[in-house]
Amino acid sequence: MKTFELSKEIIQEISQLISNKKNKEIKKKVKEIHYADLAEIINELNFQESIYLIKLIDSDKTSDVLTELDEDVREKILERLSEKEIAGEIKELDSDDAADILSELSDEKQEKVISLIKDENITDNIRELLNYEEDSAGGLMAKELISVNENWSVLTCLREIRKQAKDITRVHSIYVLNKKRVLIGRLSLKDLITSPSKSKIKEIYIPKVDFVNVNDSADEVAKLMSKYDLEAIPVVNDKTELLGRITIDDIVDYIKDEAEEDYLLAAGISNDVEADDSILELTKARLPWLILGLFGGLGSVFILESFENIMATKELRALFFYTPLIAAMAGNVGVQSSAIVVQGLANDQIKGSLISRLIKEISLTLLNGIILSLIIIVFGLLINQSIDMSITISVSMILVIIVAALIGTSVPIILEKFGIDPAIATGPFITTGNDVIGILLFFYIAKIILGF
Amino acid sequence: MKTFELSKEIIQEISQLISNKKNKEIKKKVKEIHYADLAEIINELNFQESIYLIKLIDSDKTSDVLTELDEDVREKILERLSEKEIAGEIKELDSDDAADILSELSDEKQEKVISLIKDENITDNIRELLNYEEDSAGGLMAKELISVNENWSVLTCLREIRKQAKDITRVHSIYVLNKKRVLIGRLSLKDLITSPSKSKIKEIYIPKVDFVNVNDSADEVAKLMSKYDLEAIPVVNDKTELLGRITIDDIVDYIKDEAEEDYLLAAGISNDVEADDSILELTKARLPWLILGLFGGLGSVFILESFENIMATKELRALFFYTPLIAAMAGNVGVQSSAIVVQGLANDQIKGSLISRLIKEISLTLLNGIILSLIIIVFGLLINQSIDMSITISVSMILVIIVAALIGTSVPIILEKFGIDPAIATGPFITTGNDVIGILLFFYIAKIILGF
Repeated sequence: MKTFELSKEIIQEISQLISNKKNKEIKKKVKEIHYADLAEIINELNFQESIYLIKLIDSDKTSDVLTELDEDVREKILERLSEKEIAGEIKELDSDDAADILSELSDEKQEKVISLIKDENITDNIRELLNYEEDSAGGLMAKELISVNENWSVLTCLREIRKQAKDITRVHSIYVLNKKRVLIGRLSLKDLITSPSKSKIKEIYIPKVDFVNVNDSADEVAKLMSKYDLEAIPVVNDKTELLGRITIDDIVDYIKDEAEEDYLLAAGISNDVEADDSILELTKARLPWLILGLFGGLGSVFILESFENIMATKELRALFFYTPLIAAMAGNVGVQSSAIVVQGLANDQIKGSLISRLIKEISLTLLNGIILSLIIIVFGLLINQSIDMSITISVSMILVIIVAALIGTSVPIILEKFGIDPAIATGPFITTGNDVIGILLFFYIAKIILGF
Repeated sequence: MKTFELSKEIIQEISQLISNKKNKEIKKKVKEIHYADLAEIINELNFQESIYLIKLIDSDKTSDVLTELDEDVREKILERLSEKEIAGEIKELDSDDAADILSELSDEKQEKVISLIKDENITDNIRELLNYEEDSAGGLMAKELISVNENWSVLTCLREIRKQAKDITRVHSIYVLNKKRVLIGRLSLKDLITSPSKSKIKEIYIPKVDFVNVNDSADEVAKLMSKYDLEAIPVVNDKTELLGRITIDDIVDYIKDEAEEDYLLAAGISNDVEADDSILELTKARLPWLILGLFGGLGSVFILESFENIMATKELRALFFYTPLIAAMAGNVGVQSSAIVVQGLANDQIKGSLISRLIKEISLTLLNGIILSLIIIVFGLLINQSIDMSITISVSMILVIIVAALIGTSVPIILEKFGIDPAIATGPFITTGNDVIGILLFFYIAKIILGF
């Protein structure tokens, strides 16, 4: 089986069927398409076509499609659906997906939709989930799970599982509770199958169970599940009462989203934008960082202007020619140092003191700087530049990139200490800062060496 | 439960116990620690201590610890273990982990280790897995799985599963084969439990099953499993015969590693390095990109030098002051454009033609450029710069960043077309190119406008 390839042909075909109102053929076609693929198709259709398609296809498929749509497409579609229609879709969904979609509605519409769902089990679950922070264990968990009482027999347990399992797509672990609904252990389906049917759960359950608190951060949950290779983890409150469970598929999405966000942030793109977003949205994500870079550049204008008088001396003009080189090297080294620290922090790999890390960065940058200097000196010889100038440039460059490395290393560590996402450091923030500081240092060091 | 926090205290404690040879206490302590956490501790111990600990603890735990260690630490430890000791560990592992570790040994040592494993089932599996490319479905899959024949009854099936499941940590799906071992469907444990024990598998299995070919790329498998929320996927050969299965935990690791690699690559760090690697390894990963940046900088030296004569005209000197600004803006815009395209390519979101994408980037950059220009003009007024100069700088900057955006957008798309990882484009490659091209354009456009 190959990944479904979204092609112009399939979009055109569906678009054609819609404009000819060939409902029967559309339904047949759509039946063969996985809801995740159908969502990709709908992302590409125009709004009228999307609405037509959404209203045409079966509700159990529509609800799944809704969860997979791009957020902006979903927003528009939900605006066009009545509260009753939305309630109909919501009922079909797992509690976590239901809450995610509802959280995108206005408070008023949210309340109306919930009031139209008559099943109290569902509305209680949704109301509970809507209370948790998006980036917490509570925000990731679903209420659907299978739990058994320690006092049941294997037989009762199997019967109960059959009943509970109806609402659940995938059975991972079976959670074992005491009579106060406190999580005390787990049962694997495998163990259950292989036990005599009269055994009591309390005799066969595994009393060791990993769990997270409902207020733990999503980041912590993701680390824990990926480190210990868990496919599901139960979520409890402070009294260890079972509240829900988080499954690995949600964690996979979370990890991918976070990685994407960090990657874009490092490139100077904030917010969660995509290539296909509107120019306005893309500008909102990109312009602030460009303005930051512009201010850095204007800072350099001031610095360079203050050294204008040395332009009169032919021997010193080279300093201006090397300014972009110095700025670029300071930026590059700073980004390298910061990226490796950010990555290390994300993986909990930054051990040892800040001092020892800084000493390592200094040695590393010194080594790189010496090699780079040799190239500069050879280049200087080739273009008949005075050796004094080549040495001045080399020495200043080494000092500039050492400072850049120190800034690149310490800024993310300091941000992390203050609870700010260190990923923000890599990218324009560090580049711009190091550009300006690099140019300033370069001219002052050159001034000291060359004595102008 | 909190994520295990690696602390200096625990490392010191274990280190102390080792130097006092308190074997009993060590064993007791180690028993409480998850193997993934123990691997983190061993990563921090010195080599002698690691070897002591590895040789002391039970083989079933050691083998799991080995799979979780940092690659360089594992390499050193494996060098110190005899082939017989390694064979002992390998036997305890799942086939995929076993093959991964063996693939790190020299061919000779690998052969010796395999020859010491007497179980032919294990060695056949390992030999097969060693043949596949690391980044293919074959390289990710394990041989351990549960398969049943379509002609079996539920009862036979349950008995066979009990037998097969002994070797398997987690049961996902049960794969249904015909008598030629061709994969024809799947059975969920849930369905199996809820079916009468005399039913034949062929009556109750689900004939729809997702699978991948053993030669599919790891990337494709990861996309497929995360898109369709699969927790395991069977792997087949060209005849659709079942060869193995890939589980989501391996995909989670793969996704994390790839994201990390892309992030570091965008920051100008190739190879898979970590903050704690040696200075030499870090230099190998970082220096090539710095040299690339240096060559770009030296290119700018040539360009600026060729405009040296305009330094004599006071009014034109400002062009030199603005050079770092122009270079920085060209770099920033180029990286933004390229990052969003790279991300889009990774998510299969780049639809429409290259032309329409370029037109969008031009409009976006024009909009941003106009806003940035206003800031430059206000700045110019504040520092009493001639309005001609401010306008010249603004116009050149707009053109420079439009070109930077075009380069940033097209380079990744072109790389992708030639089968090169487009992620390499973002980062120093684009920054350096755009720095040089930006400076060149800036001076030539200024020359045209100002007529010098």
